[in-house]
Amino acid sequence: MRRALELAKKARFNCPPNPAVGCVIVKDRRIIGEGFTQKTGEAHAEVMALRDAASRGESVAGATVYVTLEPCSHYGRTPPCALALKNAKVARVVAALKDPNPLVAGKGLKMLEEAGVKVECGLEAEEAEEINRGFLKRQREGMPWVRTKMAMSVDGNTALANGKSQWITSEEARADGHFWRGISGAVLTGLGTVLADNPQMTARFEGVTRQPLKVVVDSNLSLNPDLKIFQGGKTLLVCAHYDIVRAENFESQGVEVIELPGKDGKVDLRALMRELAKREINDVHVEAGARLNGALAMEGLIDEYLIYVAPVFLGDGRRLLDLPSFKDLCEGVALEFTDIQKVGPDVRLMLRPVR
Amino acid sequence: MRRALELAKKARFNCPPNPAVGCVIVKDRRIIGEGFTQKTGEAHAEVMALRDAASRGESVAGATVYVTLEPCSHYGRTPPCALALKNAKVARVVAALKDPNPLVAGKGLKMLEEAGVKVECGLEAEEAEEINRGFLKRQREGMPWVRTKMAMSVDGNTALANGKSQWITSEEARADGHFWRGISGAVLTGLGTVLADNPQMTARFEGVTRQPLKVVVDSNLSLNPDLKIFQGGKTLLVCAHYDIVRAENFESQGVEVIELPGKDGKVDLRALMRELAKREINDVHVEAGARLNGALAMEGLIDEYLIYVAPVFLGDGRRLLDLPSFKDLCEGVALEFTDIQKVGPDVRLMLRPVR
Repeated sequence: MRRALELAKKARFNCPPNPAVGCVIVKDRRIIGEGFTQKTGEAHAEVMALRDAASRGESVAGATVYVTLEPCSHYGRTPPCALALKNAKVARVVAALKDPNPLVAGKGLKMLEEAGVKVECGLEAEEAEEINRGFLKRQREGMPWVRTKMAMSVDGNTALANGKSQWITSEEARADGHFWRGISGAVLTGLGTVLADNPQMTARFEGVTRQPLKVVVDSNLSLNPDLKIFQGGKTLLVCAHYDIVRAENFESQGVEVIELPGKDGKVDLRALMRELAKREINDVHVEAGARLNGALAMEGLIDEYLIYVAPVFLGDGRRLLDLPSFKDLCEGVALEFTDIQKVGPDVRLMLRPVR
Repeated sequence: MRRALELAKKARFNCPPNPAVGCVIVKDRRIIGEGFTQKTGEAHAEVMALRDAASRGESVAGATVYVTLEPCSHYGRTPPCALALKNAKVARVVAALKDPNPLVAGKGLKMLEEAGVKVECGLEAEEAEEINRGFLKRQREGMPWVRTKMAMSVDGNTALANGKSQWITSEEARADGHFWRGISGAVLTGLGTVLADNPQMTARFEGVTRQPLKVVVDSNLSLNPDLKIFQGGKTLLVCAHYDIVRAENFESQGVEVIELPGKDGKVDLRALMRELAKREINDVHVEAGARLNGALAMEGLIDEYLIYVAPVFLGDGRRLLDLPSFKDLCEGVALEFTDIQKVGPDVRLMLRPVR
């Protein structure tokens, strides 16, 4: 199963919106086939592993299959994997997790069991959950997993008071950031960041063959359609007041514009997340300024903070998050550290809200 | 030598102003004696190790001695260790570092060499330097090693905007902070912290038998002598304007008051550090607010930042450091991470300025 989890990780760049799954087929204590989910519409992990075994000239009859997620039981973009395993006459299937997708949800394992295959579920479930946080959350709650990336100085500034901010962190930290963009279904940003940095928001990382959807929050459609983020790749522009003339400027160049009005003339961020989940976005990667991040945090929409800390003090600069002025310590946003690591000269902190 | 370094660490609470030294005596591939520096005026590591060997009934003649710092060659509070080793007829002495104390500075090793003892120096020098940063800096530069301890939220706030700050970090982090107080010769704080928290500033940690000197910066002697920090233990109050009436209130209860005027009616912090070094303070542990820390940082007086990060966002609160408003990123205070660790639910960052 450890090997299957490793294989699953390899799938992450290109498999969304499918879950990243790894599969290992073992017979007589030897690995006779391995596979992981290919890009959308192509083969799933189990089929890849069966093909791998066939190409090695191995018979899988009577073998044990380790797979990081329950084999699917439905005809989707590909035929059901449970059927393929059944037809291959494997003896035993060990899955890390049940697939919460209502079209599967135990039916894959049941189909196998009824065919006389020995079935187990739950091995290394925790790590398997980690790898598919987004897919699992979307299936269970109809919401994507929202991770926000920030870069700051040790004293919590994202930029100087005058706004100068580019390259606070190292090349290594920026490359690491591209990894997280790459495994996400969408990259979300706001007006301020687009104006300040004119970013492309593409995932520039070796092994990426699929680009995340670019999502820009611009309540009044006040951005200029010439900005880099609107060039190339799919972009979704989200406003609070649809204006047919302004929208036309974007739509004519292939940018989709949607209206999701919320309070105070702002975009309804919760509605936006639901919309993205409907569009099969498992993971939303946020790269935005203090205002949008603060609003997402106060709405309880952020599942994970990915913070790169550069070894510098910047003094009286721009804050990480715009939050209200709390009166008591217990009103602050309570988190827990889930990972701390050195990335080049910087430190990467990962935190999740305590719910 | 690894074992000798471990022993040296055990000496740190109680040996200041002496360096923390560990010593291991090896004969026929067996450890026959171990020791580390005792409290001031008592035996040094080498003598402790010789006594340990004697108490085990072992003869040290012909043995090899591993010691984390060159054995002393002068009559100070105790007789020279080099002489003790020579008289014990050991065959070989391996030291991690030369002692930069001008009274020793190679003379200890030379004394041994002239007595026919085989001498080596430099093994594990880097870690030996780490353990005695303060002692070594004071001997080499006439200045103490200055470490400042801070506690902040992930977004760089030490307190809420209304000043509420106590217990941002966990019990584990606070206990860890007491460790660093305990190994320091002095604890330095400022008016603001004393007014806000009325702290005792004592080292409350198992194994501490010696308390650091409490040093309070209060330019105008405006603090109240009834505050906890002035009760019990040695306290040094540093002002910029000596006022005989106000000073008398402190002096009558055993607090020493000194005047070190600097710019703008403030205390000359560099002069203060020199004064502390003269008083044989190797390590100064700073626990102060943004103003004093900012001033120390801008003066280039801080050698090490010890920052506990609590997993919480506090929004628009009090800053870590009062620094000028930099115009360009390269004007910020450049640091490097020397250690990152989880301490309870918090993260401890250690950084040093890049010089």
